[in-house]
Amino acid sequence: MRAPDIIRKKRDGEPLEPAEIAWMVRGIATREVLDYQWSALLMAIYWRGMSPAETVALTEAMLHSGTVVDLARIAGPKIDKHSTGGVGDKTSLILAPIAAAAGVMVPMVSGRGLGHTGGTLDKLESIPGFRVDLDLDQYARVLEQCGLVLVGQTAEIAPADKKLYALRDATSTVESIPLIAASIMSKKLAEGIDGLVLDVKTGDGAFMNTLERSQELARTMCEIGARMGKRMTALVTRMDEPLGLAVGNALEVIECAACLKGEGPADLMTLSLELAAEMVLMAGLEPSIEAARAVCQRTLDDGAALERFRRVIAAQGGDPRVVDDPGLLPRARHQTPLLAPRSGCVVRARAKPIGHATVLLGAGRSRMEDGVDHSVGVMLHKKVGDRVAAGEPLCTLHHDGESRLDEARVLIQEAFEIADHAVEPAPLMVERIAISPAKTSGP
Amino acid sequence: MRAPDIIRKKRDGEPLEPAEIAWMVRGIATREVLDYQWSALLMAIYWRGMSPAETVALTEAMLHSGTVVDLARIAGPKIDKHSTGGVGDKTSLILAPIAAAAGVMVPMVSGRGLGHTGGTLDKLESIPGFRVDLDLDQYARVLEQCGLVLVGQTAEIAPADKKLYALRDATSTVESIPLIAASIMSKKLAEGIDGLVLDVKTGDGAFMNTLERSQELARTMCEIGARMGKRMTALVTRMDEPLGLAVGNALEVIECAACLKGEGPADLMTLSLELAAEMVLMAGLEPSIEAARAVCQRTLDDGAALERFRRVIAAQGGDPRVVDDPGLLPRARHQTPLLAPRSGCVVRARAKPIGHATVLLGAGRSRMEDGVDHSVGVMLHKKVGDRVAAGEPLCTLHHDGESRLDEARVLIQEAFEIADHAVEPAPLMVERIAISPAKTSGP
Repeated sequence: MRAPDIIRKKRDGEPLEPAEIAWMVRGIATREVLDYQWSALLMAIYWRGMSPAETVALTEAMLHSGTVVDLARIAGPKIDKHSTGGVGDKTSLILAPIAAAAGVMVPMVSGRGLGHTGGTLDKLESIPGFRVDLDLDQYARVLEQCGLVLVGQTAEIAPADKKLYALRDATSTVESIPLIAASIMSKKLAEGIDGLVLDVKTGDGAFMNTLERSQELARTMCEIGARMGKRMTALVTRMDEPLGLAVGNALEVIECAACLKGEGPADLMTLSLELAAEMVLMAGLEPSIEAARAVCQRTLDDGAALERFRRVIAAQGGDPRVVDDPGLLPRARHQTPLLAPRSGCVVRARAKPIGHATVLLGAGRSRMEDGVDHSVGVMLHKKVGDRVAAGEPLCTLHHDGESRLDEARVLIQEAFEIADHAVEPAPLMVERIAISPAKTSGP
Repeated sequence: MRAPDIIRKKRDGEPLEPAEIAWMVRGIATREVLDYQWSALLMAIYWRGMSPAETVALTEAMLHSGTVVDLARIAGPKIDKHSTGGVGDKTSLILAPIAAAAGVMVPMVSGRGLGHTGGTLDKLESIPGFRVDLDLDQYARVLEQCGLVLVGQTAEIAPADKKLYALRDATSTVESIPLIAASIMSKKLAEGIDGLVLDVKTGDGAFMNTLERSQELARTMCEIGARMGKRMTALVTRMDEPLGLAVGNALEVIECAACLKGEGPADLMTLSLELAAEMVLMAGLEPSIEAARAVCQRTLDDGAALERFRRVIAAQGGDPRVVDDPGLLPRARHQTPLLAPRSGCVVRARAKPIGHATVLLGAGRSRMEDGVDHSVGVMLHKKVGDRVAAGEPLCTLHHDGESRLDEARVLIQEAFEIADHAVEPAPLMVERIAISPAKTSGP
């Protein structure tokens, strides 16, 4: 095979054979295919798209470029959740203990925040001592002990995806649905899971710019997973305003602990419980989504989920007392409230500028190699649909008195819109897609 | 500026600013733009195309990536010809001496053969002692002495084009009209010319696969040249069967000498004279194309063109006696005729397989780093429209008894088609495009 011939086929809109895609991916490691050939192919894929069969072939090839974890020796259904990312999106830290307490094994490999969205690893690392860099043996051991494990991607997982992602970033070929789907799925399938629940975000704070594209991404990922023998469910959910009230790493951990005590904000509680219930249903532990919801609610009521959270924190080297004593988490030096300029109803609290503002405060990063400040962030006091009086605080900025505070403040001021008329927040859940693997399809 | 932003604009079909294109081209040398970013941009250009303004900007940027020869101190109109390449296409060696004898200064920088087409440099190098690698001083001196000079591209000419061409070749982004046009024009405009006559081939043996694309390429190149202050004329001409009878380096030099004596095959004589006449007309030496044709014919009749050919061969280190004694040129060891399998009229003699057959015999190269055998090739005895009797030779293969003879023979056998009905060869000239630079446009 020759790379220019394969590039030409895609360029001309002809389908690629699975063997051709596999050869191109192997060529990254063997240096038979050079970076500049892959980037031309990526642009041709961006242009021409990929069929489901091609996307599966790309996913499989990237998956097998590295280690695929085998969790067969661990009993129980292994189910993970993946979110396409948003602002204040901290459901992982809530639903993983809930699902584990309900009997699901949750082997969760997460990422770091980039751009305006936060990342689960950064949130976890705000817990003193918490280690996300477990090796594969520790990974399996924590999972077995706790029913959940919360780690970062190791270098052995899908190295071809890592390489191609860096190329896509440098060549403006990120926003391609088959490329996004294959990238996510190759990493998730390397975890050794039986099924995956997807939370595909749509709206202002999501990476997908239209509902149609969010739905297409959700369907594409479900199809890939099902063709590769995995149970797949996707919820398409709104990310117009931040999820919950906390945006920023330690602030979000505090909010997660509150949720696990049944005391979290309604939108975050509802979505976390719903995703956890989907995992319980997918695991076959309950016969219906209603029954699964009830089981999940019980893990909150009886403290079992909170106990799981304490247990996994301790197992991964962290201080489990943070769950009960927020004072043990890093706290920003200054708290500055941002006041409502007028009275009325909050009709918009745009997630993207609020996310960017927390990056300016130091909570996130614009380049992968940057560090983050775990203490800073924004606490919302008002969300869409809430009434506010002039001079009442809309939110509080937690910061270290740095110069970019003013920029962050302007961004957030512009993110909030207050009107005379009242609005109801749009329903969080937009669509549910569930696909089971065909009986005949093998891994 | 950032490469990903520029790639994104082209990806989304937005026009690029000249400054952005110039920055991308400069980035090749400064390493601010990496190969894999350029190849993604090349694929995006292949997809989205380029406006005339963008194509001019790319041409100018590549032109100024290297030396631009200044021939201002040499008196007289400097006009070159460029052909997009074909089989048996040897007009350069005929028209350059004719135009020079008619008073045009012809500074001609040519290329080598690649794939099924021949290259002027390979043909010239079949002349014992002939040197095509002159430096810029020698280049100007030979031009001044002889009225023509026939050399290869030096490393100082348009290095960015050399780099981008290699990338295009490795990423299947060669066949893009703006990229082809900018590549050709950046090299030609570096020669220091006032005007350029283009011979854009169309048909089986041409690189452009349809007449429409050939016409579009011709118009694009004329427009670039005119916008950059050059006089431009393009003839779109057929390349369905080889031009003339000889295909192969030394064989073609012999045929050129015959043409300069007025004894060449009709199609080759006509096209060479027409292109030379266009150069004379463009140079402003004659008031009409008819008068220019007459002047060119006179340089054949009085031996002036032949004398120019001898003079330039001697000036570039070659043996000028080859013009009168073909025995001084390399000659293949074996001559094998290929006989007509049936009687009838030759209705097709496809240029492409005949070109490929001569490459198999060793006359051309499939990779740029290969060498060529100057002695081998094919002499046609029959062309389209000729009647032939069964067993009569269609052509003679000049070869060295090597193993690929059989493959070459099969290719040529299949290239010839003999039918009962008679046909007339299609007229060589399809279209003429001429554009003068706008008075206001400066270089």
